[in-house]
Amino acid sequence: MQVVITGGAGFLGQRLARQLLAQGSLPDSTGQLQTISKIVLVDIVAATGFDDARIEQITGDIADSALLERAITTESSAIFHLAAIVSGQAESDFELGMRINLEASRLLLERCRICGHQPRVIFTSSVAVFGGELPAVVQDNTALNPQSSYGAQKAIAELLLNDYSRKGFVDGRVLRLPTISVRPGKPNKAASSFASGIIREPLNGESTVCPVGPEVRLWLLSPRKVIACLIHGYTLSTEALGARRTVNLPGVSVTVGEMVAALERVAGADVAGRVEWKHDPAIDRIISSWPGAWDATRATSLGFTCDASFDDIVRAYIADDLSVA
Amino acid sequence: MQVVITGGAGFLGQRLARQLLAQGSLPDSTGQLQTISKIVLVDIVAATGFDDARIEQITGDIADSALLERAITTESSAIFHLAAIVSGQAESDFELGMRINLEASRLLLERCRICGHQPRVIFTSSVAVFGGELPAVVQDNTALNPQSSYGAQKAIAELLLNDYSRKGFVDGRVLRLPTISVRPGKPNKAASSFASGIIREPLNGESTVCPVGPEVRLWLLSPRKVIACLIHGYTLSTEALGARRTVNLPGVSVTVGEMVAALERVAGADVAGRVEWKHDPAIDRIISSWPGAWDATRATSLGFTCDASFDDIVRAYIADDLSVA
Ligand SMILES: NC(=O)c1ccc[n+]([C@@H]2O[C@H](COP(=O)([O-])OP(=O)(O)OC[C@H]3O[C@@H](n4cnc5c(N)ncnc54)[C@H](O)[C@@H]3O)[C@@H](O)[C@H]2O)c1
Ligand SMILES: NC(=O)c1ccc[n+]([C@@H]2O[C@H](COP(=O)([O-])OP(=O)(O)OC[C@H]3O[C@@H](n4cnc5c(N)ncnc54)[C@H](O)[C@@H]3O)[C@@H](O)[C@H]2O)c1
Repeated sequence: MQVVITGGAGFLGQRLARQLLAQGSLPDSTGQLQTISKIVLVDIVAATGFDDARIEQITGDIADSALLERAITTESSAIFHLAAIVSGQAESDFELGMRINLEASRLLLERCRICGHQPRVIFTSSVAVFGGELPAVVQDNTALNPQSSYGAQKAIAELLLNDYSRKGFVDGRVLRLPTISVRPGKPNKAASSFASGIIREPLNGESTVCPVGPEVRLWLLSPRKVIACLIHGYTLSTEALGARRTVNLPGVSVTVGEMVAALERVAGADVAGRVEWKHDPAIDRIISSWPGAWDATRATSLGFTCDASFDDIVRAYIADDLSVA
Repeated sequence: MQVVITGGAGFLGQRLARQLLAQGSLPDSTGQLQTISKIVLVDIVAATGFDDARIEQITGDIADSALLERAITTESSAIFHLAAIVSGQAESDFELGMRINLEASRLLLERCRICGHQPRVIFTSSVAVFGGELPAVVQDNTALNPQSSYGAQKAIAELLLNDYSRKGFVDGRVLRLPTISVRPGKPNKAASSFASGIIREPLNGESTVCPVGPEVRLWLLSPRKVIACLIHGYTLSTEALGARRTVNLPGVSVTVGEMVAALERVAGADVAGRVEWKHDPAIDRIISSWPGAWDATRATSLGFTCDASFDDIVRAYIADDLSVA
């Protein structure tokens, strides 16, 4: 079987590809394991460090229909659509966010509809689809009310995935992801970049700035667990999912102050002391509009799992990424 | 001031134009009455019967950017975006619905963004954005869950209007309309066409088929009242509206059986006897997914009003339309 990963050179895309290469197979819709013969990474930049004959790279703009025609064929059974413009950048570059987060998602679904083979399409949505006055714990039937262009674009793509699934053009699975922490590497243009930075930079001996107050509550998941959730999202039977294609993934609800306290518990006061608090109103406005927790009962009953605690998340980063950074 | 009405040759578009011609002015954002110098009707077909120098007609496809450039300029202070593919047709012709209900709405907002004058854009959404398991009375914070492509496209356009408004590109007002009854003229391809047909055809001496059972509950508004709501939606100050650009308009909640009973009360048993009951599963599936009522407290406090009863709606049709049919 063939797998397509858009945004395949990105943070989650590369990890997903490595995990799929390692496990070598995925179940088909009858539950039978199918050997993965090819993984197509589609991204505007090329991924490096892949030395495996099963990897094919297609470099170009996902909002270009001709590129989508090359990338997606009737052989593409699993399509992980991860390419995106992150929250901070979609807010500052409105046109770019609309083109990639909305228009490219629509074109990708159109390509699948034309192919007609009803592939499983796994789409990564976000906490950012919620906003405004929210219950303490967001429920499955809480209204979407995005307060950023990124959130609006993700909400629109969710609606498209659901309608294309209802019409039988794709077998879509929308996974609403918590904020991923701890992300290795450099800070990025996501408004939530600090949610990794305040752990990663201190552990790497660098000082870092936290742009929101210690009372701000986040809903988090580790890179390890999100990759497992993406694959589980593909694996789920269509019957188990039913008509509701959107799943709020489980996560860990912590305040930023509790995150720094966990860092101190795991790595000591010197390390935790490298966090400086400096308020940034633009980031605070976006982050504070996101839910600090949602009810993940449905996800849990569907077999999705999350980290046990934020201390575990810090330890997972140290084990998986700190040595290789 | 200049007004643009897309779908200006349609049922609501023509009535809105006539009402605006009759009143001759609209308040600007400071509340000062401004004389309407021009009303541009944009539609794929030309409207007939307008003999007024203030009416300009632009005939063509609203999904064509060049047409939008001609239709919308920095002089267009009020834009009523009514052009749409109705529910039944958007379900059977998926591509057409996507192109007009989604893509053209996006292009229209883009045109406004490029113009940069932040016009008031009034958009007509629908009960069809809701669906699935619903509370008996839909609330302002009930999650959108469209069960038709029309509903999904309207929900997406709502999200776009809200984000373009948040960014300050337009001053958008999304009015979620009840089903409009009694619509004069011929049946159309809306799944809800019967909601007018079961009153209109019997009053015109014709028999008619009702495709859903008498227990099905609808949320209705008369043409008279919806035109008043559209104009009130334009008139509302930006401050009164606040960040939430979507308003659930008030309506009358009745079952189809109660509608026929009202017809009998107003016009007699002979007339009501012209309704034949013949179940149509495709129509029933769409209609039964729509809410039979929603909480209109916010709309009422913003000054929107509706009909007092369905008997009144039948009488309004007889007064406004039956003689001229
Ligand atoms: N990391 C998180 O905290 C988080 C949380 C919620 C949702 N998500 C979503 O998960 C997905 C993956 O996130 P990530 O953290 O790996 O992000 P990332 O930015 O690392 O990866 C996104 C990839 O998309 C690619 N891309 C951007 N524009 C493109 C274009 N025009 N054509 C082709 N490729 C293009 C980028 O080059 C990048 O490699 C995204 O959809 C993101 O919105 C991430
Ligand atoms: N009537 C109702 O019960 C109801 C209920 C809820 C919402 N609405 C919404 O109100 C609006 C007006 O409804 P209506 O009842 O007047 O519908 P209508 O079908 O009478 O009018 C729509 C108009 O759009 C025009 N149009 C379609 N495709 C076009 C294109 N490509 N380019 C230009 N024009 C095009 C049609 O020619 C038509 O004149 C629509 O957006 C509809 O979805 C109506």
